[in-house]
Amino acid sequence: MARHFSLSGFPEWLPEQRLVEQHVLATLQRTFELHGFSGIETRAVEPVSQLLSKGETSKEIYLLSRLQAEAGSDDAELGLHFDLTVPLARYVVENAGRLMFPFRRYQIQKVWRGERPQDGRFREFVQADVDVVGQDTLSQHHDMELPLVMVDALGRLPIPRVVVRASNRKVAQGFYEAVGITDIEGALRAIDKLDKIGEKAVAEMLVADGATQEQAEQALALARIHGSDGSIADQVRALGARSDLLDEGLEELVTLIEGANALIPGAVTADLKIARGLDYYTGTVYESTMIGHEDLGSVCSGGRYDSLATDGKKTYPGVGLSIGVSRVLARVLQAPLVDTSRRVPTAVLVAVMDEEHRAESDRIAMQLRDRGIPTEVSPSAAKFGKQIRYADRRGIPYVWFPGQPDSVKDIRSGEQSDAHAGEWMPPEDDLYPTVRMTS
Amino acid sequence: MARHFSLSGFPEWLPEQRLVEQHVLATLQRTFELHGFSGIETRAVEPVSQLLSKGETSKEIYLLSRLQAEAGSDDAELGLHFDLTVPLARYVVENAGRLMFPFRRYQIQKVWRGERPQDGRFREFVQADVDVVGQDTLSQHHDMELPLVMVDALGRLPIPRVVVRASNRKVAQGFYEAVGITDIEGALRAIDKLDKIGEKAVAEMLVADGATQEQAEQALALARIHGSDGSIADQVRALGARSDLLDEGLEELVTLIEGANALIPGAVTADLKIARGLDYYTGTVYESTMIGHEDLGSVCSGGRYDSLATDGKKTYPGVGLSIGVSRVLARVLQAPLVDTSRRVPTAVLVAVMDEEHRAESDRIAMQLRDRGIPTEVSPSAAKFGKQIRYADRRGIPYVWFPGQPDSVKDIRSGEQSDAHAGEWMPPEDDLYPTVRMTS
Repeated sequence: MARHFSLSGFPEWLPEQRLVEQHVLATLQRTFELHGFSGIETRAVEPVSQLLSKGETSKEIYLLSRLQAEAGSDDAELGLHFDLTVPLARYVVENAGRLMFPFRRYQIQKVWRGERPQDGRFREFVQADVDVVGQDTLSQHHDMELPLVMVDALGRLPIPRVVVRASNRKVAQGFYEAVGITDIEGALRAIDKLDKIGEKAVAEMLVADGATQEQAEQALALARIHGSDGSIADQVRALGARSDLLDEGLEELVTLIEGANALIPGAVTADLKIARGLDYYTGTVYESTMIGHEDLGSVCSGGRYDSLATDGKKTYPGVGLSIGVSRVLARVLQAPLVDTSRRVPTAVLVAVMDEEHRAESDRIAMQLRDRGIPTEVSPSAAKFGKQIRYADRRGIPYVWFPGQPDSVKDIRSGEQSDAHAGEWMPPEDDLYPTVRMTS
Repeated sequence: MARHFSLSGFPEWLPEQRLVEQHVLATLQRTFELHGFSGIETRAVEPVSQLLSKGETSKEIYLLSRLQAEAGSDDAELGLHFDLTVPLARYVVENAGRLMFPFRRYQIQKVWRGERPQDGRFREFVQADVDVVGQDTLSQHHDMELPLVMVDALGRLPIPRVVVRASNRKVAQGFYEAVGITDIEGALRAIDKLDKIGEKAVAEMLVADGATQEQAEQALALARIHGSDGSIADQVRALGARSDLLDEGLEELVTLIEGANALIPGAVTADLKIARGLDYYTGTVYESTMIGHEDLGSVCSGGRYDSLATDGKKTYPGVGLSIGVSRVLARVLQAPLVDTSRRVPTAVLVAVMDEEHRAESDRIAMQLRDRGIPTEVSPSAAKFGKQIRYADRRGIPYVWFPGQPDSVKDIRSGEQSDAHAGEWMPPEDDLYPTVRMTS
């Protein structure tokens, strides 16, 4: 199925591939709602000033202009959103008086980034976000809840297993400060590159940023620690550094890891090399990898932000994660790792005897649809063999023949039997196309 | 619920309003699939040259530029799509070898137009399109099928009744030519304005375009004809004009009207004043009005195009209609004409005794979710009265109390009974939020 898109970076799927995407999106939506999250959508555009306030991605923004804008038009300068967090922050502040806090929201939408397209990196792609946003305060237990929502959602998808890993900014910051590293953000940025450039190059970056060789080695020792229980705190403390912030971060992280694994064993691992580039995270941070597809990078990431937004009077802390849906989907579609039971939604093709009797077939189709069975009527009154081939090419499992009585044929087995459109039902597995992993 | 949007022309809904939108979109999707249409999505952008080839809307296009595009970048000049027909044409030609014809597709996506925002006219809005596209040929019976798909879909929505009206370009063109009107497109554009400016002003437009007073009167006489059966052909012929094209159009129109009403009485009316501004329609044209909301204009429109697209060797005729979802939705939400049974997806709130026992509540919630019941855990271990108020404000119908045994309370009736999370189910009406018309 792998092929080029006619516009590089803008993926489009064939109808049978879109069936897989629809299955994935519906499963995500349903899981988020099972956890009591409300779906919202925000407009695709934000004022450029809003988008630019998150400096890091500024260079990748798509700006809009109207082809025939009037001279002196006072339209705000607009750009396409590059994530769903900036719009959420604006939406929360704008609607604070009409929302209920903690506000549990999910949001599944396309976002746009003008980056150079490459494997797994698109200019237009779908993100699926869940966040809980509080007003002034937000309990720490949501830091454990949110990754478990994603573990539940990802576990229902026809994709390889995804492992969520967590760390905590307070651990890194507290530790760096305790060992005397002064450029905290620089150190986080360097550690963030570990998987890409390796320990030696990261150590060089740290030293170039002003750390001593020993400090760099300590930062790397911290980044090597990972595990699924409280022993990670012992390993960190064994490195010798001490600070209140470090202790606070370790307690948060251990509570999260132990709580999550008590509910769903193996759900979340602590991994102290996770740094996350964005500077608005203030506590827990998350990344995750799809087993066997580590080259894709993190497919579900996020964290806690003590101040997602503020309106001057109140602040809105939040915690959440975002799935890079298109990145995952492109991989499973193009490998391919998934398959559908048929290429169209149709379960039954009603044959047409001749054009004069098309209305009879139309009436049968209406009866079947009224009972929830996806049905189309043969586009032509060709010989029955040709009408059956029409169904066969599309994977439509049943062909219905009007008569006295009517009969229905399972064209896979060849079995044919009398049937009444007011009563007959296909087996449940044949009602809708099903999606399954091929490996 | 009526309120201004923070960016004029870009509607955004509150979570409880979005429940209505989700219900509408899911109902449309499900109905289109019941009729055997495949869902596709196309990228939001098209090369500007493609968009401009449909002259009429060129002035309303949003152009894209990258904030930090490299000098000499060879990126194609891109714009946001303003409908779903231009992208469909491109998609069909691009993928012709991988699609099966007749290609039955639906597409529900946002589109963008830089028009001056006004009531029912947005800059960002959702369209829901269904089309059948043939390769070189497309049977006429699809002209009857497609409006019936829309009648079925619209009839399932929580909105006032929508009546589909149809006409045929061949009737208008054949008639105008027979009475000697030479500027056919000008006449269509003038007649298209009838509802807005009235007969007198339309007659003046026609005369200004070169028609005689008598020809203008004949065009208006044609436009006055409407009905639900073959008698409309007699009325047209009674006006005296004769041409082969007129006969062909009348036969197509009468076949459509009589066939549609035989299947679903009252589904489609002939209305010869329908002209449609776009010049790519070549036969049947459709419009529709929501009863009691005629001021909104047509909420579902479309037609037949003999050449939706061509790749030089083959042509792709099509017929289809498009629902202006946001226009309809804004009206029913802002009146409001609809209501939801609750404000969030959650059916059950599991109470928390104290923070030490939160995991117990988490486990109950997991059990309920595994059985398909949308459940959240109370964000705080406050007094039970306060936890119940949390549910009440959101319209969550049930609060679950962990204990030995557990118990569940319907907070609307106050009834409380022992329950087991592995067995209890709410009544089906309480499982998900329901949407109903209020009037």
